[in-house]
Order: sequence, then C-alpha cells, then structure tokens
Amino acid sequence: MENPLVAIFMGSASDEEAVAPAAQILRELDIPFKITVTSAHRTVARTEKLVDELERQGCLVFICAAGMAAHLAGAVAARTIRPVIGIPLTASALGGMDALLSTVQMPPGYPVATVALDKAGARNAAWLAAQIIALGNEPLAQRLQAARRKNAAAVEKAGQELERKFA
Amino acid sequence: MENPLVAIFMGSASDEEAVAPAAQILRELDIPFKITVTSAHRTVARTEKLVDELERQGCLVFICAAGMAAHLAGAVAARTIRPVIGIPLTASALGGMDALLSTVQMPPGYPVATVALDKAGARNAAWLAAQIIALGNEPLAQRLQAARRKNAAAVEKAGQELERKFA
Amino acid sequence: MENPLVAIFMGSASDEEAVAPAAQILRELDIPFKITVTSAHRTVARTEKLVDELERQGCLVFICAAGMAAHLAGAVAARTIRPVIGIPLTASALGGMDALLSTVQMPPGYPVATVALDKAGARNAAWLAAQIIALGNEPLAQRLQAARRKNAAAVEKAGQELERKFA
Amino acid sequence: MENPLVAIFMGSASDEEAVAPAAQILRELDIPFKITVTSAHRTVARTEKLVDELERQGCLVFICAAGMAAHLAGAVAARTIRPVIGIPLTASALGGMDALLSTVQMPPGYPVATVALDKAGARNAAWLAAQIIALGNEPLAQRLQAARRKNAAAVEKAGQELERKFA
Amino acid sequence: MENPLVAIFMGSASDEEAVAPAAQILRELDIPFKITVTSAHRTVARTEKLVDELERQGCLVFICAAGMAAHLAGAVAARTIRPVIGIPLTASALGGMDALLSTVQMPPGYPVATVALDKAGARNAAWLAAQIIALGNEPLAQRLQAARRKNAAAVEKAGQELERKFA
Amino acid sequence: MENPLVAIFMGSASDEEAVAPAAQILRELDIPFKITVTSAHRTVARTEKLVDELERQGCLVFICAAGMAAHLAGAVAARTIRPVIGIPLTASALGGMDALLSTVQMPPGYPVATVALDKAGARNAAWLAAQIIALGNEPLAQRLQAARRKNAAAVEKAGQELERKFA
Amino acid sequence: MENPLVAIFMGSASDEEAVAPAAQILRELDIPFKITVTSAHRTVARTEKLVDELERQGCLVFICAAGMAAHLAGAVAARTIRPVIGIPLTASALGGMDALLSTVQMPPGYPVATVALDKAGARNAAWLAAQIIALGNEPLAQRLQAARRKNAAAVEKAGQELERKFA
Amino acid sequence: MENPLVAIFMGSASDEEAVAPAAQILRELDIPFKITVTSAHRTVARTEKLVDELERQGCLVFICAAGMAAHLAGAVAARTIRPVIGIPLTASALGGMDALLSTVQMPPGYPVATVALDKAGARNAAWLAAQIIALGNEPLAQRLQAARRKNAAAVEKAGQELERKFA
Repeated sequence: MENPLVAIFMGSASDEEAVAPAAQILRELDIPFKITVTSAHRTVARTEKLVDELERQGCLVFICAAGMAAHLAGAVAARTIRPVIGIPLTASALGGMDALLSTVQMPPGYPVATVALDKAGARNAAWLAAQIIALGNEPLAQRLQAARRKNAAAVEKAGQELERKFA
Repeated sequence: MENPLVAIFMGSASDEEAVAPAAQILRELDIPFKITVTSAHRTVARTEKLVDELERQGCLVFICAAGMAAHLAGAVAARTIRPVIGIPLTASALGGMDALLSTVQMPPGYPVATVALDKAGARNAAWLAAQIIALGNEPLAQRLQAARRKNAAAVEKAGQELERKFA
Repeated sequence: MENPLVAIFMGSASDEEAVAPAAQILRELDIPFKITVTSAHRTVARTEKLVDELERQGCLVFICAAGMAAHLAGAVAARTIRPVIGIPLTASALGGMDALLSTVQMPPGYPVATVALDKAGARNAAWLAAQIIALGNEPLAQRLQAARRKNAAAVEKAGQELERKFA
Repeated sequence: MENPLVAIFMGSASDEEAVAPAAQILRELDIPFKITVTSAHRTVARTEKLVDELERQGCLVFICAAGMAAHLAGAVAARTIRPVIGIPLTASALGGMDALLSTVQMPPGYPVATVALDKAGARNAAWLAAQIIALGNEPLAQRLQAARRKNAAAVEKAGQELERKFA
Repeated sequence: MENPLVAIFMGSASDEEAVAPAAQILRELDIPFKITVTSAHRTVARTEKLVDELERQGCLVFICAAGMAAHLAGAVAARTIRPVIGIPLTASALGGMDALLSTVQMPPGYPVATVALDKAGARNAAWLAAQIIALGNEPLAQRLQAARRKNAAAVEKAGQELERKFA
Repeated sequence: MENPLVAIFMGSASDEEAVAPAAQILRELDIPFKITVTSAHRTVARTEKLVDELERQGCLVFICAAGMAAHLAGAVAARTIRPVIGIPLTASALGGMDALLSTVQMPPGYPVATVALDKAGARNAAWLAAQIIALGNEPLAQRLQAARRKNAAAVEKAGQELERKFA
Repeated sequence: MENPLVAIFMGSASDEEAVAPAAQILRELDIPFKITVTSAHRTVARTEKLVDELERQGCLVFICAAGMAAHLAGAVAARTIRPVIGIPLTASALGGMDALLSTVQMPPGYPVATVALDKAGARNAAWLAAQIIALGNEPLAQRLQAARRKNAAAVEKAGQELERKFA
Repeated sequence: MENPLVAIFMGSASDEEAVAPAAQILRELDIPFKITVTSAHRTVARTEKLVDELERQGCLVFICAAGMAAHLAGAVAARTIRPVIGIPLTASALGGMDALLSTVQMPPGYPVATVALDKAGARNAAWLAAQIIALGNEPLAQRLQAARRKNAAAVEKAGQELERKFA
C-alpha cells in the first residue's frame, strides 16, 4: 500500500460520521491517506508520534477534526511545518461556534487552515488538501478541474429540472 | 526563596498587564508563586518542562492566561492532574468570546477551571487558587475570610457615600 | 455512610439527566458525595443551610449546575470559601450561552470554576473536584492517573479500529 | 424626607455614571427614591436587610443595575414580591451580552423586568418604575403623559431643524 | 364577567402554545385577563383600538408575546403608559436572540419589561403582572407569597427524592 | 408564456423547500417569474449568463437564496443594477447567522436588499419584489393592498377564535 | 422645489452623522429627497402623517435608520406598500446586532429591505433606492452605471498605487 | 524581478494597514509576491484577469483579505484550483464576525483556507502560504524551521525577563 499523502485525525471515534466525507473525496481523487483517532489532550504522545512518523513517510497535509475547545489542529500545527487543515465540528449546544473560534484564531506563526463546520467542512478539507498537493502533481490538478466541471454540470442539470417543475 | 505553590503562565509577554492582578492578589495573600511566559504552540517543550519541574517542586495549582484560540490552559491540563485555572483574554475584535470558548469547552477528563475574562478573571484566578490551597491551609482560609469581610465593608462604605451624595 | 467530600446541587429536578455523569464519575473514583436539588431563587434559605451543614461535615468542593440565568453557583460562592464549580446547562433556545455567561463572569473575589456545557461539563466538574481533592489524597491522585491512562488506551484502540475499517 | 417609593441598587460604585440617569428621571418626576451600592455576592446580608427595610418603609419598586454575571436583580427578586427591574451594564469585552442574559433569563416565579443596556436602560428603568407607581397615582400618570408629549415635541423640532439644514 | 386587569396579546395564532402558561398562571392567581391575537404590522388599527378599549375598562398591565423582529410590545408601549411586559419568542433559527433584542433594547421613555424567552418567559410575564397588580391588592400579594412557599416546598421535595435515589 | 419580471435563484437544489413560498406568492400575485438553481462559485458563467439574458427579457428584480457563506446575491448584485433581494438560508449549525451576515453586509455601491431567514424571508422576498414592481403597476399595487386587508382579517379572526377559546 | 422621490427618516437627531452619506449619494445621483427625524415610538402620529403625505406627493421609496430595537422601518412598512429600506445603526454595546435583527427579521407580508450597518448601510440604502427608481427612469440607470464604472476605476487606481508602493 | 509565487489581494485600499504584516513576512522569508487592490464586486473582471495572469506566471497561492460580507476569497476560489487563503478583516461594529463567517463557511468544492482575524491573520496567511510552498522547496522549509526556533527563543527570553521582574 502506498504511503499516505494526507493524514486525517479526529479527536474522538464519535466524529467519524462527520469526517467520513473527507475520506470519501480523497478516495475519489485517488490520494492515499491515513485516517485515525487521536486526541490533543488524552493522547499527546500518540499525536506527536503519529505526526512525526507520517511526516517521515512523506505525508504532505494534516487534516484535523475536533469539536468544542478544538485544540487538535493547533497541537499538530505546533509539531510540523506541513500545512494543517482544521475542520470545526458541532459537538455542543453552541452551534459549533466554540470549535470554529478554537480552530481559526491561532497565534502568528502557527496557522490552521480552517474550513467550514461539519460535513461541508470535511468535504472542503479534502478539497483543500488536494489543491495543495496538486501544486506539484499535474494529473491530480486535472482530476480536480474535471471534478469542478462535473459539479457545474450537476448544478446546471438541477437548475433545468427545477425550471421544468415550476414551468 | 520559597517554592511556588501557584504557577502563572501567560501565552505572550503582551498579556502582562491583564494578568498582573493575579500576581498582586497572591502576594497580598502571601502565597508564593512563579510567573512566566510560555506558549502552547511556540514553546511546547518549555511548557511541558515547566509543568514537570513546578509539579516536582510542590506547585499545587496552575493558572494559564491566553487570548484568541487559547490552548495554553488545555495543554497544561493534558500534562498534569493538578487543578488548572484558565483566564480567557480579549486579544481580538471578537470581545474575548474566542478565548472564552477555547478555554471552557474542554473534553471530559481534562477540565480547565475557567474564570471571567481579562483583569476580573485574573483576580478570580488568584482567588480560586487560594481557595483550593486553603483546603489544606487553615491560616490562609482565615486570610481569605478576612479579605471577604474587607470587601464587604468597602461595598458598604461606597454605598453610604453614594447615599450621602444623592441625599 | 461517609460524610460527603463533594456536594452536587442542581437548580431543578429536570436537570438530573444532564448532571448524572458527575455523580457517576465521583462513584467510580470512590469519592463520597451528596446530590440534591436546591435553587438560588426559590429556596434561598435551603441553599444556605445546605452549604453550612455540608461545610461543617467536611465537604470540600461544591458543584452547582443550572440553566438560563444560572445564579446557583454564584449564590453558593457567596456563602463559602470552599471552591465552587459551575456547570452551565442548556435550558433555553440560546444554546447555553445564557448559562455559560451567567456562571463564568463572576465579580472579583467570588470565583466560580466554570466547566463545559451540559454532560461534558458534568463529567469535568467531577474530574476537577477530584483533582482538587487529590492534592491532599495521594491514593486518589493515583486513581486519577490510572483513569487517564485508561482514557488514552481507549483513544488508541478506537484509532486502530478506525484505521482497520478504512484500510 | 419622604420615604422612598423606588430603590436603586448598583453592584459597584463604578456603576454610578451608567445608573445616574435613572435617579435624574425619578427626580424630574418627583418620585422619592433611595440609591445605594450593594452586591449580590459581597454583601448578601446587607442586600437582604436593605430590601426588607425598604419594603417596610413602603418602597414599591426595586431597580437593580449590575454588569457581567449580573445576579443582583435576581437576588432581590428572590427576597421580595415587589416588582424588580434589572438594568444590564456593559462591564466586560462581551458588549453587555453577559449582563443581559444573566438578568433576563430568570426562572419561572422570579421575574426580573429587564430593560435596555447601560444609560438607555437606566432611563427606562426609571420610566418603568414610574409607570408602575402611576397605576395608583393619577397625578404621576399625568406627569408621565406630559413628559411623553414633551418627548414628541422634541423629536418634531429636531426633525424640522434637520429638514431646514438639508433644504 | 369581570373586566380584565391584564391583556395578553400575541402576534400570531401560532404563538398560542408558548404563551398559554401565562394565561394559566393568571387563572390560578384569580386575575381576570383577556387574551387575543393582534399584530404590530398586520393590524395596527386593531392593536391601537384594543389598547384604548382595554385601558378604558381598567386593564392595568399589557403582556405582549412575539417572535423574530418582535415589535408588538414596543407598539403597545408607544400607545399607553400602563406597564408593558414583553415575552420574546423563538420563531427562527436564531434561537430567539432576534426577538430578545427587538424587545428589550427599547429607546428611553418607552420601556418594555422584558422577561425570559418562550414558556419560561410566559410564566414570568404572568408573575410580573401579578406582582405589579399586587402593589394595590393585598389578597393577591398573599396568594403570591403562598405560591412562592409552594414553589419552595416543591424544590425541597424534589431534592429529598433525588437524595433518596442516589443514596 | 410571459417574460419573467422576477428571477428566483437558489444556490443548491436542496434549497427548494425553503424558497418555494417565494414562488407561491408571486403566483398568487400573478407576477411571471423564472426559478432556477445556479451557484456563485460552482457556475459563475451560468449565473452571469442568466442575469444578462433575464435582464434583456425585461426581468426587473432578482431574488437570490443561499446558505452558509451566501455569496450568490452579492455576485448577482455585482452584475446588474436591477434591485437584488437576498434570502439568507439556515444551512449549518450556526442558525443562519453565517448566511445573514454574508448577505446583508455588502460594501457600498452593491446593495443586497436582505430579508428574514428561511421561509419567512422567502415570503418577504416575493412581497418586496412585488412592492418594487407595483411602483409602476397600479393593478398589482391594488392586489397587494387587497392581500394586506386579507392578512389583517385573518389576524382578527384568529384573535376572535382565541378569545372564545379562553372565555 | 421638486417633490421628493425618496424619504430618509431617522429615529433620533443623533443619527445624523451615520445617515448623512445616504443624503449625499442621493444628491450626487440627482434624486430629490426629504430627510427628517421621526420616531416609531415617540411620534407615532407624526410618522404616519409623514408617510401618508410623502406617498401622496409621489415619494417612491422610504429609507429608515434606527438603532437598538430598531422598529422605525417596520412601522413605516406597516403603513405603506412602497418599498421600505432599513439601515440598522450601532447605538449600544451590542455592536449593532440588536438593530440588525430588529430590522431584518420582519414577519411575512411586511418586508424591510435591510442593508449593512451604519455608514456603509447608509450608502447602500441610497444606492438601493436609486436602483429601484431607475427601473422606471433610464437616465438615472445610466448615471448608476457611470457611477459603478467610476468605482471600478478607483479600485484599479488604488491597486496600481499599492503595487508601486510595494514594488 | 522574479515572478510572484504568492498574490495578496485586498478588497479596499483602506485594508493596507491590516494586511501589511503578510507582505512583511513573505519578504523576510524571501518569497516573491504581488500585492494589489481588487474587489469581488466593484472589479469582477479585474479580479478574474489578475487570477488568470498570476496563475500563468506561476503564482502558487492566493491570499485574499476583506471585511464585512467578505466575498473576495470566495470569488478567487471559484476561478482557480490554486489554494486560496482568506483573511477576515474587522470593518464594521460586528467585531469581524461578519467577515469570518463569510470567509470560512464556503460550500463543498471551493474551500477558502481561513486564518485569524486582522493582523494576526495576515501574519498567518503568509505563514500558511510559505508552508504550502515549502512542500516543494526545501530551503524555504529550513527558513521556516529557523523562524520557528527564533520564535521559541523569543518566548523563552520574554519568560525569563518576566520572571526576573516579579522575583
């Protein structure tokens, strides 16, 4: 099996459903990835070891998903200069505002590339990782362009169906 | 010099003004403390080393102040089972909501005892640390009770002055 | 039956489900506790009497859970210098923001050690109480360290299962 | 001097500037009042004693102003069935949202009649107190109606001046 | 049938469920009231006519419940100097924040006595109206005191049951 | 078939349910419209082409509905000087606040006439479009006045039913 | 002097500075307007009379600016079927959120076309009014297009200057 | 002069001060960049032309800074599959929440890598761009590591100074 180019970390096994779309998109784009559970607080050593090992294996981008005081992406960003993407998850009654602010408001020098909340964010984390990797991988760039054209065609088709329905 | 019973960490030297009231109150209560700058992201190793050393020296409570995606208290809480108190600081246009949620919404097993924003919170962090230490230190408990009585007297005096002014 | 070291107060019987995890964790950690319903507004005298009696019996930490304009923890904090932990509960359409701010933004001298919203907060209130008590109780400190190791192992196991599932 | 019909309590002497407009309006409306400082947490006994005494002297309405976790109005509301009016004050970086929610989200049976933040709220607290008292005081009702007509005339005059300026 | 002392207006028939607890409490307290639907925008004339008629019939307090840009209480407050109580209702995805701010942030001279969101607020609107009316009605004041004692007893009983359950 | 006077764009086919009330009201008011799906990001060219074509056909008002970072209305506003109405949709855990701010906070020179969130906003978008068109269409103005009278009568009827129910 | 095509109402004379940019833009676009002060609560009759008179004189669009519980635009919208544009103003510590929600969240049938907060919103209110009037006024439409081209040229020039500065 | 590897776009010349730290850091890291003003709404064609030209010249990363309904980053993200970084700017009374949500909540397929608000975000945008470029540029990776070590040393030095000051 190929070495992963992308790592997907989630803070808890219960985040799997929200994060799964990231894995699915990476698969569709044929980008090898590793997905696992590790925590900024409960398994500090495991997180550090995972980052170091994956980096040595050539992993280029780290995607971290967490809810509440979502520190996981920040902890990874403190360990590596590889780009780190943060997916804030809704895991309390505060509508994800806690995770969003904990992820995006990083101090200078330790950026987390923050994307949208929950599943929409999971999809965009995979897209952003792919766009970063595509800077050095022209075939992937072409797959991304093709996926965008497919997206556009789907919108156009949905538009035509709606037009017919209301005509 | 006595070994510190309380550690006060701030994420940046620019936090000194907001955090200083914590130091002042500990001094008034005659509780030895160490105050320094260390960062959850910029100096991971330093933070861990400080926590370990201070714990060995008998430090009982850690106070951590940080703004924005305030991860410092959480990082310390992941390293020790000593009580960790978090002071969220206003360091962006979001009115401290970022630091508050990043500090208080910790995952199960790794609590951060969160107090109010900014200087009011710095004062209460010192008070809370003192109340914790006073559980095993009766003279300190009596100093706290005396301080409360002084507080009450000051309110009463202010009330009487205001009454005279408006009479 | 042993005298309680921790008191758990909730403002209304309807808070029981959200607060129960605090009781469960204290039981697992073998810390004697008393749990009851008392209100900052509806039963002022009862709350004061409970605090005084429990304090006399040697209760060390007060945990108070309330929703909306959550004044219970503050009312207890005004009565004792024992550490008071506040669990803000979601009890209106405002996503718990009302209870969070009413609990955490206490004036200087009367701190409430605020933890996360709802069940996650209930768990952390118990953890924080245990960490405070463990300062003077080495066997409890060791039980806490063991619980943390179990936590870490559970995360690692969940990570491995997820890795297998996506392999 | 006449017995006060309205009490104005503020949690701290530093609230005087924000609360003063309430006193000024009561004076203009010729309603005797007592204004003082008392705290929900620092002077529990003083607050209770003040409420009891004022009630015995015939005080009809209690106005309470406080910032942050603004519990003062709630504490008074728990002590009396006289109407209690709460003025939330901006006293932290959160723009008064903390005081507003701590004041308005009271549990059933213990209402606090909440008005706007800061000086606008201080004015309206006095107005609301006057409207309540005017239910049993026809001359006061007529003074209120006259004040409203004056208000309206002032708006009309300001409108005409602006029209001329832009003509 | 007696003339109403309290009017309960709601902006839409769909608000009935949220507002009903206000009516129920007024009934329990034996306070005659009129409840109806009228809108600040859709039926301006009807609202004005209702206010004028009810005022002539001796209505003392107006309770207005509305969601979203909740202008109903303000429109009534502009028409009468009787005390107006506003119940903000959750009627959009914004968790009632829209209705709360539209109700409480009234300009000087036109206060709306704002209570909590939704059903808790409906209950407190009735309580507040009763407390206002009780200023001139001693038997009602005694019914309110009795209701408070019943409230306190219920909390105490719930506390004892919970204590037994966890013993 | 008549040329459309109003265009209704939604960013995704999944918005249909929330937006449908706009179409229904335009139908009731006998205003020809075109409804379709087009995206600010996925189909930039399609959006521009639709705006240009519809403008040439005499379309007077553009209604754009989108959730999250709702850019669709802004993108249309950048392409035409016809009035553009924005309906913010709730499509994340943030309660629509994201879409509301993305729609309303447009820079000078490129206004989006923003209405309420979700279905209430969809209805009001149609109403606002109709009010704009009615400036040059007296029969439509009369249909709008009639609809308002019907609205008022419905409120009055609902009020009477509620009065009977509680009598 | 020409009859006004646009009315600009503000709730208080103190709003003049924030609202003035609306007047300035209407002047630049050569659209006759009337600007005055009138209040939703303090001068209900004046507001209604102004709306009726201006409508009779051919006024096409109403712009209403107000802060806090900003009801003015809604009150005007309840009186006319001419399009009403609302400018929410920052007039409390809540950062304009109160005025924004009070303005935009109108109930079905009574839309307020809401624009951005404060001066940016004042500019856009004038722009939106002009775009609405331009539907029946081709020379104005051309002035708007010219103004947009000037806007674009200014951005391009600013861009070139910045490029030179950093070259 | 070298072709730019990074483009920095800002929506308005008035954003220069907030965005300048991004340029400064890119200079320190010796990464060629182009900085200019272009607007998502006022200069749609200019923005598209800039993106296309820069992409042809080998520009790898686009940084876009904008306030209020910050659409610029999204508009660029719709035009290119190069990674786009968004800096939300505080440009209204809403504390930057408008720009933050407009930037981060992008729909699937069109991510914007969002960083912190204002100057802290400008610094992190440059850092993130550098980290992305460093994936294919080992000397830059080493400069980043050196910069991090310098950061850590600065924190440690600040810590020691503070320790001395309070000793």
